Amino acid sequence: MTATDPVRIGLIGAGRIGTHHATTLGRNLHQAQLVAVADPVEASARRLGEDLGVDWRPDPQSVIDDSGIEAVAITCASTAHAELVVAAARAGKAVFVEKPMAMTLADADRAIAAAEAAGIPLQVGFNRRFARDFAWAHDAVAEGRIGTPQLLRSLTRDPGLPDPGAVPPWTIFTQTLVHDFDTLNWFNAGARAVEVSVMADALVAPDFKATGLLDTAVVTIRYDNGAIGVAEASFSAAYGYDVRGEVFGSAGIVQAGSPAPLATSLWTVDGVSAPTVRRDTDLFADAYAAELAAFCTAVRAGTRTTVGGHDARAALRIALACIEAVETGGTVTIRDDDRDVVA
Amino acid sequence: MTATDPVRIGLIGAGRIGTHHATTLGRNLHQAQLVAVADPVEASARRLGEDLGVDWRPDPQSVIDDSGIEAVAITCASTAHAELVVAAARAGKAVFVEKPMAMTLADADRAIAAAEAAGIPLQVGFNRRFARDFAWAHDAVAEGRIGTPQLLRSLTRDPGLPDPGAVPPWTIFTQTLVHDFDTLNWFNAGARAVEVSVMADALVAPDFKATGLLDTAVVTIRYDNGAIGVAEASFSAAYGYDVRGEVFGSAGIVQAGSPAPLATSLWTVDGVSAPTVRRDTDLFADAYAAELAAFCTAVRAGTRTTVGGHDARAALRIALACIEAVETGGTVTIRDDDRDVVA
Amino acid sequence: MTATDPVRIGLIGAGRIGTHHATTLGRNLHQAQLVAVADPVEASARRLGEDLGVDWRPDPQSVIDDSGIEAVAITCASTAHAELVVAAARAGKAVFVEKPMAMTLADADRAIAAAEAAGIPLQVGFNRRFARDFAWAHDAVAEGRIGTPQLLRSLTRDPGLPDPGAVPPWTIFTQTLVHDFDTLNWFNAGARAVEVSVMADALVAPDFKATGLLDTAVVTIRYDNGAIGVAEASFSAAYGYDVRGEVFGSAGIVQAGSPAPLATSLWTVDGVSAPTVRRDTDLFADAYAAELAAFCTAVRAGTRTTVGGHDARAALRIALACIEAVETGGTVTIRDDDRDVVA
Amino acid sequence: MTATDPVRIGLIGAGRIGTHHATTLGRNLHQAQLVAVADPVEASARRLGEDLGVDWRPDPQSVIDDSGIEAVAITCASTAHAELVVAAARAGKAVFVEKPMAMTLADADRAIAAAEAAGIPLQVGFNRRFARDFAWAHDAVAEGRIGTPQLLRSLTRDPGLPDPGAVPPWTIFTQTLVHDFDTLNWFNAGARAVEVSVMADALVAPDFKATGLLDTAVVTIRYDNGAIGVAEASFSAAYGYDVRGEVFGSAGIVQAGSPAPLATSLWTVDGVSAPTVRRDTDLFADAYAAELAAFCTAVRAGTRTTVGGHDARAALRIALACIEAVETGGTVTIRDDDRDVVA
Repeated sequence: MTATDPVRIGLIGAGRIGTHHATTLGRNLHQAQLVAVADPVEASARRLGEDLGVDWRPDPQSVIDDSGIEAVAITCASTAHAELVVAAARAGKAVFVEKPMAMTLADADRAIAAAEAAGIPLQVGFNRRFARDFAWAHDAVAEGRIGTPQLLRSLTRDPGLPDPGAVPPWTIFTQTLVHDFDTLNWFNAGARAVEVSVMADALVAPDFKATGLLDTAVVTIRYDNGAIGVAEASFSAAYGYDVRGEVFGSAGIVQAGSPAPLATSLWTVDGVSAPTVRRDTDLFADAYAAELAAFCTAVRAGTRTTVGGHDARAALRIALACIEAVETGGTVTIRDDDRDVVA
Repeated sequence: MTATDPVRIGLIGAGRIGTHHATTLGRNLHQAQLVAVADPVEASARRLGEDLGVDWRPDPQSVIDDSGIEAVAITCASTAHAELVVAAARAGKAVFVEKPMAMTLADADRAIAAAEAAGIPLQVGFNRRFARDFAWAHDAVAEGRIGTPQLLRSLTRDPGLPDPGAVPPWTIFTQTLVHDFDTLNWFNAGARAVEVSVMADALVAPDFKATGLLDTAVVTIRYDNGAIGVAEASFSAAYGYDVRGEVFGSAGIVQAGSPAPLATSLWTVDGVSAPTVRRDTDLFADAYAAELAAFCTAVRAGTRTTVGGHDARAALRIALACIEAVETGGTVTIRDDDRDVVA
Repeated sequence: MTATDPVRIGLIGAGRIGTHHATTLGRNLHQAQLVAVADPVEASARRLGEDLGVDWRPDPQSVIDDSGIEAVAITCASTAHAELVVAAARAGKAVFVEKPMAMTLADADRAIAAAEAAGIPLQVGFNRRFARDFAWAHDAVAEGRIGTPQLLRSLTRDPGLPDPGAVPPWTIFTQTLVHDFDTLNWFNAGARAVEVSVMADALVAPDFKATGLLDTAVVTIRYDNGAIGVAEASFSAAYGYDVRGEVFGSAGIVQAGSPAPLATSLWTVDGVSAPTVRRDTDLFADAYAAELAAFCTAVRAGTRTTVGGHDARAALRIALACIEAVETGGTVTIRDDDRDVVA
Repeated sequence: MTATDPVRIGLIGAGRIGTHHATTLGRNLHQAQLVAVADPVEASARRLGEDLGVDWRPDPQSVIDDSGIEAVAITCASTAHAELVVAAARAGKAVFVEKPMAMTLADADRAIAAAEAAGIPLQVGFNRRFARDFAWAHDAVAEGRIGTPQLLRSLTRDPGLPDPGAVPPWTIFTQTLVHDFDTLNWFNAGARAVEVSVMADALVAPDFKATGLLDTAVVTIRYDNGAIGVAEASFSAAYGYDVRGEVFGSAGIVQAGSPAPLATSLWTVDGVSAPTVRRDTDLFADAYAAELAAFCTAVRAGTRTTVGGHDARAALRIALACIEAVETGGTVTIRDDDRDVVA
């Protein structure tokens, strides 16, 4: 094996995002060689494997046990993430895991501990860190170009809520806003979230509120450096997939993101218009590829991943505080001893 | 007096914004005739009067009592606003009053009652309603172009905090964010704020936190139509005077405002850049003139003002809830019976 | 008369732009006092005079002869401009004249000579110079921020061609593009146009080509400092009134102008959109007021106007070269001895 | 060989753009398999071959003769393009050739004839057609969203002129503006350029004008559907690599391109700014990959390429007319019988 050999990867979870990642790994990244895909739903595994011309299996464990595989991409249901990270780490595989890495702090701690014990690279799928506009904004903050961060904003507006009945409770915090929490943490580097306040509701699909579905949320976060962050999400943006960030500091503002990213416009009797992007896999096509490329580089070079288990835990910590805030109806303090404690 | 005679106006308060309004009334609005200016600081009154070639007086009451004056513009310190509104209304004068119209709900109710009893036009200086971009956004919402409002945002970033020691406590809520509260109320027309949550701090001038100065705040507001509003303020925007609004609804988004409003850009080795506006009187020059023109029209035509005492009270109600939220450290419910009760 | 007395102005020509200017002078500019309006079409003069509450007359000469009038605004048909400038100058009146100041070089020279002989201020209605975005761009060039100008562009896209049969031949050069020629001259200050090439056609209303109507034109201009300018016009912009400029230099680009000048946008299922402006009097409302304010200041302060007879002649010189280029089908050289020669 | 087997490609020309294409083919496109690279400069061939882990050779003909190679990418010096297209076509290879495909019409006709005789796919490297913003603009025109095209603009501003002495005469037309000519032809589909007028100069490096170097040019093109196109180029854009297009039609405008394509901005005391792109391989990274992907698809599917030999000839025809226009100092008519004549 040389420094330029592709990383031999097995992927677990042949759903929507798993299919996207598998396609990137199998077709578009010379640094990767997709060896096998697994999914307990055998038809899904077969379809994806045959489409990409790679081995397919119903059993995830067989991927983890496969000595011909160096790294595992975990893209299955979130509830299974942490267990698979632990198993893969114990098998000595490098791990790329979609967000959220875990659903509880205890699971997050177990995953982190397993990865650290095994000394394997662990990367979490916070793809916005790899979007060029967000990365440029982050670097501008890191270089001090906006001074000390004081007010931050991150928002996600998903283009639809196809089946409200199928969305698990708290999804808006653990699946959607967890991206924004990570973005805020990343922009406000070195600071720790210490207090969370939430207003959330079922405005898009009010009939499902009784089942616990929240589809609209505003989260306010106080950081220990004084900065205040706002994260907003809605599951129903009529105009496209909209992810934006803003950091206001003592010397200026930096912004990132637009649902109309093409440098084109149409001017007609109706005014000026521009096309918007409707899917995350369109808006973040390059970012999805870049995060996997970075993972392969980390695996092959043996370097640290830039977004790992502790980042996943910090974002999860905020998501869990949001759930508590909704349940108790008040502001939730995040205590220091919640931090990085292995259960 | 015919329908085209200018409105004879006396102005009380020759400070920064009073000077700006007096100049507009005296020089730029054919619908207005500035008759006199008053300020207890006699030198200020004289300077302004002489500059504009109009009568000047130290005594505000003399303006109110002046039979040659039809309308009074109240631009003095906020603490004196309500009392002057009441006095002017009782004297039968039309009233334009800068925000906030009052500092307590009881005073707001007295002002509203006095104006209604006297049947005089009462307009409050929420200038953003007269900015063309904000008005366009408002109309887009009112016409249903973004569907039902679900998430709203309004922000104010003032370019500086020249003398932190001179800023009264709670200024960020009663003087600054009161604009944003009115903007959110106006965008979300027909809905009532029912709950307020606040994170605020002294990040710009932390040394003055002990004196009660808050210079950075994020306010989250729940409305009775389910919509959630976020209002943000900072007293120290290095890049200019920045006022923006955004309404997300079931059918789309509308945005308004930019600190770089000129249609110009410069592209050099440093990238693309555009000039930003540094003062409210630059960014809102047209809006300031338009609100006074609208006031004159209302006075002369005998029509209702479009932003009156009840609007001032509704925005103040949120500001007072914010103060309570900071003092109690929690979320504050705005009860229905707080609404529009004359003390 | 003191330095702050308004300038007593008489206006000649109560058509569309005359009505706009008269309204600005009569209602919105404290530096001006509109004394009288004149138009040979008596009904037009009466309508405008009565509307603004000023004296009205059918006879333009009576305005020029009026000892109570200090300055004359000439806003009638272009063919009468030069003669009226000469007459007003001889009568010692300051003169504001709409573009084009003259239709021939000889007439332009006569107007310049008369103004210089009388020592009166003469200002020409090149309103773009007073638009804040264009002025910012001009200043950026003048300050050397884009280095040496090398490529310039100015365009005008008028929103409509209501009656093609009523448009005199060469209008696109003498009435429309004359604005762009002045803009290019102004941006490329100190340089002289030396060569002109034209492609023009009747694309909007081809049936009228036989009558000499050109409704679409691209003019390329070589300047004696090497810079190359492009001026474009069309009489039929479906999307609004569109005026833009761009200067590319050795150190960068500066741009000005947008038909969508409001800082607002609407994002719906159709994409992102913004409203466009449909009339010159909307897009340039502030610029039209600013040019008249500047004229009043020049009159009262006795200073030079910033855009005078020589500027009008230089732009006309290019327009006439364009006509020659269309007639001869080739490139036209502008000889140095054409310049500033009084007939 | 199945429909999903990668296309086995040999590349001729290991210079700057050849290295870029080879890297894309060898590393980023699953549809392609780079088999060999050739360059008469043996060191270049070796460096590139070793870097990508593929066979390398000094002799281009050996690539053409290689039975294991299906398609040839020709990225060497322009003067050799046509000859290699003919040779590759005769050998039955599919051909991707960088622009310009030929330097004379006779050579272009020979290349077209050879490709047609061999029945091989021939694609020319007009990469702008594959940039998403330009493609969106093109489609908007094709769908009639701006009505009938009347005024078109395309510009290229290259970020630098490292060694003026090394630039062959007429490069600005044959190498740079040939892109813009193709863009204009593509936007104005179905129309034919019939007349060309040029203003060009050596403004960036005037010392080299004597050697025939032109570094700044404005070309005006009349099409047989009446539309007028403007193409502009400069070899020295301080602010980045700037490629833009605009089509004005009877129903509106469409625009494409920006040197600041990231959705990010920085607002500081200096104003609002955004980063610009400095290299074609950054601005058009996706477009370069997309054109090669499209080529592979055409080869494997046996379909027509979307930009072929006749497009290359039409753009070259305009470039040659520009040279004639500069040499004769006048407007050049492009006769119909110049069109598509095989030498």
